[in-house]
Amino acid sequence: MRHDDLRERVCAANLSLPTHGLVRLTWGNVSEFDREDEIVAIKPSGVPYDRMTPADMVLLRLDGTVVAGDLRPSSDTPTHLAIYRAFDEVSGVVHTHSTHATALCQVRRELPCLGTTHADHFAGTVPLTRQLTPAEVAEAYEANTGRVIVEAFADRGLSPTHVPAVLVAGHGPFTWGTDGQDAVHNAVALDACAEMTLLTGQAERDLPPLEPHLLDKHHTRKHGPRATYGQADPHTSGAPR
Amino acid sequence: MRHDDLRERVCAANLSLPTHGLVRLTWGNVSEFDREDEIVAIKPSGVPYDRMTPADMVLLRLDGTVVAGDLRPSSDTPTHLAIYRAFDEVSGVVHTHSTHATALCQVRRELPCLGTTHADHFAGTVPLTRQLTPAEVAEAYEANTGRVIVEAFADRGLSPTHVPAVLVAGHGPFTWGTDGQDAVHNAVALDACAEMTLLTGQAERDLPPLEPHLLDKHHTRKHGPRATYGQADPHTSGAPR
Amino acid sequence: MRHDDLRERVCAANLSLPTHGLVRLTWGNVSEFDREDEIVAIKPSGVPYDRMTPADMVLLRLDGTVVAGDLRPSSDTPTHLAIYRAFDEVSGVVHTHSTHATALCQVRRELPCLGTTHADHFAGTVPLTRQLTPAEVAEAYEANTGRVIVEAFADRGLSPTHVPAVLVAGHGPFTWGTDGQDAVHNAVALDACAEMTLLTGQAERDLPPLEPHLLDKHHTRKHGPRATYGQADPHTSGAPR
Amino acid sequence: MRHDDLRERVCAANLSLPTHGLVRLTWGNVSEFDREDEIVAIKPSGVPYDRMTPADMVLLRLDGTVVAGDLRPSSDTPTHLAIYRAFDEVSGVVHTHSTHATALCQVRRELPCLGTTHADHFAGTVPLTRQLTPAEVAEAYEANTGRVIVEAFADRGLSPTHVPAVLVAGHGPFTWGTDGQDAVHNAVALDACAEMTLLTGQAERDLPPLEPHLLDKHHTRKHGPRATYGQADPHTSGAPR
Repeated sequence: MRHDDLRERVCAANLSLPTHGLVRLTWGNVSEFDREDEIVAIKPSGVPYDRMTPADMVLLRLDGTVVAGDLRPSSDTPTHLAIYRAFDEVSGVVHTHSTHATALCQVRRELPCLGTTHADHFAGTVPLTRQLTPAEVAEAYEANTGRVIVEAFADRGLSPTHVPAVLVAGHGPFTWGTDGQDAVHNAVALDACAEMTLLTGQAERDLPPLEPHLLDKHHTRKHGPRATYGQADPHTSGAPR
Repeated sequence: MRHDDLRERVCAANLSLPTHGLVRLTWGNVSEFDREDEIVAIKPSGVPYDRMTPADMVLLRLDGTVVAGDLRPSSDTPTHLAIYRAFDEVSGVVHTHSTHATALCQVRRELPCLGTTHADHFAGTVPLTRQLTPAEVAEAYEANTGRVIVEAFADRGLSPTHVPAVLVAGHGPFTWGTDGQDAVHNAVALDACAEMTLLTGQAERDLPPLEPHLLDKHHTRKHGPRATYGQADPHTSGAPR
Repeated sequence: MRHDDLRERVCAANLSLPTHGLVRLTWGNVSEFDREDEIVAIKPSGVPYDRMTPADMVLLRLDGTVVAGDLRPSSDTPTHLAIYRAFDEVSGVVHTHSTHATALCQVRRELPCLGTTHADHFAGTVPLTRQLTPAEVAEAYEANTGRVIVEAFADRGLSPTHVPAVLVAGHGPFTWGTDGQDAVHNAVALDACAEMTLLTGQAERDLPPLEPHLLDKHHTRKHGPRATYGQADPHTSGAPR
Repeated sequence: MRHDDLRERVCAANLSLPTHGLVRLTWGNVSEFDREDEIVAIKPSGVPYDRMTPADMVLLRLDGTVVAGDLRPSSDTPTHLAIYRAFDEVSGVVHTHSTHATALCQVRRELPCLGTTHADHFAGTVPLTRQLTPAEVAEAYEANTGRVIVEAFADRGLSPTHVPAVLVAGHGPFTWGTDGQDAVHNAVALDACAEMTLLTGQAERDLPPLEPHLLDKHHTRKHGPRATYGQADPHTSGAPR
């Protein structure tokens, strides 16, 4: 079967979501975009994790045309595609209803950087999207969810590479990365940071953010040309690169 | 043995409760109602999950007459039966003392819809029952628990199909669905929504509910004739249908 | 080896503590008292759970004399013995530092009955001990911990059978029962009730307790001559009897 | 291979971090210092726990010179080395981003002793470091993190043997001990105490600390010449000695 590697990677990344404690039932999905072949692989809609196999993954083009797979793709597929179309460096996307990040979405709070755990993954505040209008929900809900995510970055002049995550108001988080597994790591980090924020009451009162010099130091030791974290050969390392 | 499939499904649904983290010790029970044969199968009272087998399930008629099984049925059986008698579309019922939903019962708060996780399962506020009177507790406690559940829906003009869950004041949650497993999925969703509500302090202060257009969109994409979530063949899908 | 059954039961009950999520490292211990032979079996001090065997259990008389076992008994042994000497119906004792019950001990709050989960196990408020004096700590710390537990019940006219648990101020919970496993079940229930109390902010503000008629109904359907919960043959049931 | 025992112990201690629920992804590291041979073994940077073997451990001298190992050492290595150079009795160091201790670091709160769980491991308040200056971060971030840890103990006249833990402001906890496993036990205890502190709102309001006589009693029954906890032969005991 063509794109077997892609299917296997995407299936494994999806199966890692319950292992990391990020999803219950079928509430999450991972996709990966092969930018060379212009093929996206994504989880099918509503299939339980305990019987999911690589052959169940659905293959699509960026415009949403299904090119392989017997099952319906995740209902959130148009949001994933909008992210791939707008953000050139992104090749993996994750959506979950992970408890703590989703709780922040529900209280409509962005997530400022309060410590180095956050700085290791996100170079500043993780933004909150604006609310969708009734017309946007009625017309093309999932595609318009993608639109407000892209808007949230454009409006703030934020780079999706520096902050690979967003909180969708009233809904849940999306994270992304260089591939599906990298996007899953960012989903783990986002929920951990959201949990610590909730534990210390930050969703209810304002705490001072991390000092800028410490934020910059932690982010650059893990990311970019000055990175010293992990191994020189990235295949040795399971860490966010 | 007759009704072997029913016994197996109900046993499996009961065993899934600790797997989903919804019960400790023996604090939970699932039943399923075969509406064709008019037989309810339910967990026996106080039998530990690690030695429960399909043969232990107790079979009863809607009036409470045991038709098969050597063990006593769950002490909550009259509540399950009252729900089946009053709610025609319901064929599966779950009762747990799951931590977060039960905590809401203890502070006597209904659960408004604060996000799409809730909207995916419950088309609006999950109601709280009124308190039982001393006479109602003394006479027929478990049957009267069923009565105040049914009352809570009648008084509010609520459909048990649209909101398949209730919080019993001072006690714990009941959820229901098209079969035992569907009721378990709603129990998972209810506890997750209760957890997020507690994390954000909603039990102590009032937060704005989810916008009605988003609530409606999420509920109808998973339920009813316009549903697009999951697979066309429901047996492929493990999601709430 | 004599008392093999007792050793095996006590070892199994100790091993169930980490399974129930009640202990980390070696922070917990279970004992059981064979009232016929007047022999107590208890966990040895500081032995990791993953290499504990029935042969490691220490056997003692009620006065603390070790009658079998190569290892030192748990450092909390004098507290267990004080409970057995004072409370005639008790034949199993558990001490843990379980997170939520211990957190209540640290804020020095007793645990009122706020719901039926509590009522199923404890017929009213779980008391908090008074603080030990410097002299009581210096002289016989563990024995005096037992003394303030017994005092807490005498001062309030409380029956240790009706409320088989106590919160030791600044320290952690002790629970008891008809055997070691029954005491473990009460430790599970106590931590669950403490968790719900903390989740709803009860440790910081006062909530109305459960209605007395509901408390009485739940407790008597599980305990005493009018019990209807579980199976007629208690060996079938894993529930608190 | 030389130092095989050291590598195996350090690898096992690192693998125990996710088992104890203290790390997600690769966010933690354990080292151990063989004071006789003057060799430190530490986890390599960014290698996933599920493929880590003893052969991956990196061996270094106290000045940071790598003497064996093909992989880069943990990026936090200079902090570990600073601790070994300053604290003579320390031969094991652990760094994690464990949820509750890290949350305290993020709200910049030291951890006072609020109960005997704390007193069993730490003979008083666990200090919080001062904030690093921009120059200290730019020059030698990890080594200067070690410097402010050592300063925190010197400034308060605190013994690192009596309080084997520190909260680094805005970052996360470091703990230490007589070997890697002992340092891991202290990391477990620190996160448990931080969790209880957060559960009772202590990070937001001031609670009375544990009585000094109880703090002293619990600490000395586990540590020092008057210790009675655990077994006379320390190899029998898995508890903090």
